[in-house]
Amino acid sequence: MQDLGDPLARMRDTAPLVQNITNFVAMNVVANAMLAAGASPAMVHGRPEAADFARIAQALTINIGTASPEWVPSMIDAATAATDAGKPWVLDPVAVGGTPFRRDLGLRLLALQPSIIRGNASEIMSLSGITSAGKGADTADAVTAAEPAARALAQASGAVVAVTGAVDFVTDGDAGFRVTGGHSMMPRVTALGCALTGIVGAFAVGQDPLRATVAALAYFGLAGEVAGQQATGPASFQIAFIDALYTLQPDDVSAKGRVQAA
Amino acid sequence: MQDLGDPLARMRDTAPLVQNITNFVAMNVVANAMLAAGASPAMVHGRPEAADFARIAQALTINIGTASPEWVPSMIDAATAATDAGKPWVLDPVAVGGTPFRRDLGLRLLALQPSIIRGNASEIMSLSGITSAGKGADTADAVTAAEPAARALAQASGAVVAVTGAVDFVTDGDAGFRVTGGHSMMPRVTALGCALTGIVGAFAVGQDPLRATVAALAYFGLAGEVAGQQATGPASFQIAFIDALYTLQPDDVSAKGRVQAA
Amino acid sequence: MQDLGDPLARMRDTAPLVQNITNFVAMNVVANAMLAAGASPAMVHGRPEAADFARIAQALTINIGTASPEWVPSMIDAATAATDAGKPWVLDPVAVGGTPFRRDLGLRLLALQPSIIRGNASEIMSLSGITSAGKGADTADAVTAAEPAARALAQASGAVVAVTGAVDFVTDGDAGFRVTGGHSMMPRVTALGCALTGIVGAFAVGQDPLRATVAALAYFGLAGEVAGQQATGPASFQIAFIDALYTLQPDDVSAKGRVQAA
Repeated sequence: MQDLGDPLARMRDTAPLVQNITNFVAMNVVANAMLAAGASPAMVHGRPEAADFARIAQALTINIGTASPEWVPSMIDAATAATDAGKPWVLDPVAVGGTPFRRDLGLRLLALQPSIIRGNASEIMSLSGITSAGKGADTADAVTAAEPAARALAQASGAVVAVTGAVDFVTDGDAGFRVTGGHSMMPRVTALGCALTGIVGAFAVGQDPLRATVAALAYFGLAGEVAGQQATGPASFQIAFIDALYTLQPDDVSAKGRVQAA
Repeated sequence: MQDLGDPLARMRDTAPLVQNITNFVAMNVVANAMLAAGASPAMVHGRPEAADFARIAQALTINIGTASPEWVPSMIDAATAATDAGKPWVLDPVAVGGTPFRRDLGLRLLALQPSIIRGNASEIMSLSGITSAGKGADTADAVTAAEPAARALAQASGAVVAVTGAVDFVTDGDAGFRVTGGHSMMPRVTALGCALTGIVGAFAVGQDPLRATVAALAYFGLAGEVAGQQATGPASFQIAFIDALYTLQPDDVSAKGRVQAA
Repeated sequence: MQDLGDPLARMRDTAPLVQNITNFVAMNVVANAMLAAGASPAMVHGRPEAADFARIAQALTINIGTASPEWVPSMIDAATAATDAGKPWVLDPVAVGGTPFRRDLGLRLLALQPSIIRGNASEIMSLSGITSAGKGADTADAVTAAEPAARALAQASGAVVAVTGAVDFVTDGDAGFRVTGGHSMMPRVTALGCALTGIVGAFAVGQDPLRATVAALAYFGLAGEVAGQQATGPASFQIAFIDALYTLQPDDVSAKGRVQAA
């Protein structure tokens, strides 16, 4: 893998406009994390404009965290428009194994050819058809246990698949990388995974999806390490984390990002 | 009342999965407060999965803060599923006296047998049929003025009723307890009451609802005291408060929680 | 312009109840900023109660940031009720030039006679029918370039128009004022403009809309300057900013607010 800080530098140079159809819990955090990172997020999901906006935006992310039937057509419209226009889009299949509604929605979106899929181990296992122990948005499975599922899902879908957890795993079905970073307090802060999905979407604009995803994860993990040194609890962690997304420079990611081929 | 810290310890041991159908203002704060406390929150309200998820979750909370007609069937479905499965569920009747829509919805949910009802003085008075001076989500009534309404509501509904304010009051219609704690800055931070509802829901899993509610309120009030010593305004208060939910230990609640029979 | 701190003092004396129909990204921040400032916000948008509540509240704000067709009737109902009752209401036409849906909605709401319109340069130019370079909720236009559009929009609509950015501009179509303040980190924090809209709504209760808007902007800009001296990134900026809304006193705004006739 080439210089890990370069994709951050390129993302900041263009401040890409990214449409995010995400969940109610995460909307504010996703927007703030993306702004801190240097992207231009826009939360646009209304049915009459979801596809119009996908044609304007440079990338799209779809997160099914609080999906309801009313939102499904907007998700489908926007994903279709992004794929038709050759723009990168990222699928975040939150708790996809939790209920039949979620499973159906996840599979419908998967069929619309996301460029990148980011989830925790339980979600990636569920989406690839493997039984998982996950409950809700939490994960009960380890990332390493999900590596075969991630490879299989990447091969079947053509997407880059990222499984995030204590150690992340990213694959295009062929090459694989493990990204180390983050902090043990991150699972105690809601919507950080959703924020990562938005940042991955921004990195993917005009950049190779595998390399962009790995670099985004290394940057995100590094911000977690910085925040962990300052936080006294999950709320001060979140503040320090978003500040770190803002203050970290490409050179920091080049020097300190930890990625290994797997 | 037995040891006040024990219900927190038991809640943390199981990290109960709690479904929250709450309002848009509160969703992020409720999730973060519950994660900091040690619970596993899930915000699931879509019609096709609300009841499915209530059967998976260990408790349910319903908050009508930004309710709209589209959400009512999900609330009804989930509450019905929780009651049918014998799982605890908590009703948070935000601003229930404010409009006819809200009053009707509050009464419909009340008929579905919540285990616990948590509100401010105006809300509890309104729900029990007593005229209140409340406007919006604020309260214009003192907790002490609402104690008879709380007792009457508990007796009529079979629920434990908690009226929260400067001094909280909890009753099952027979026994009553006053819980002291918190800080004068708390009314300047939105959605803390909603967060408390989520935490009460987590405490109620596998524990006596009266004791669980009293212990959750003592813990919450103590976090407010800790935060008040550090905050320079409402936003830094919220950060310190959620951090305190994370750092406070059962022994702290046992030693410093302030509860009196009333 | 008279004493700049007086409108803040008057707003705090009455803690006006303001109904906000705003976007999902902003709801929590708008509520917290308004509470910190000393107002009583209420987020009420359900169709069966939107107009009922507009008759109870003392002011209304409508923000189209994440509008969808389901919300349009509530916006129309509430704006109509506010105008019919002679109550001030503020329009925040987020990204109004971005899609046909947004443009149509902006024009429909404009026809319902808002008392005040607050937007960035691109939004005010779009709403006044002038071509803009804006994308999404960001602005690609400078405030000074939008001053003629603001004057024209104020004259055509009868509303006070505020264009906010590095230097704000406020006009009733005749008089004009430039308000200096804020900090370069503010565009990296989501929903601060939405929060300002809520605060402007609170200032407008029982006060002259032009003077109330100028005073609200001076107060908001001063909070930005205070926060900028403390922040290490956008997230700590937001915390310091909301704390500053709480700690700043009318005398501070009188002494340090910076307004010039334009």
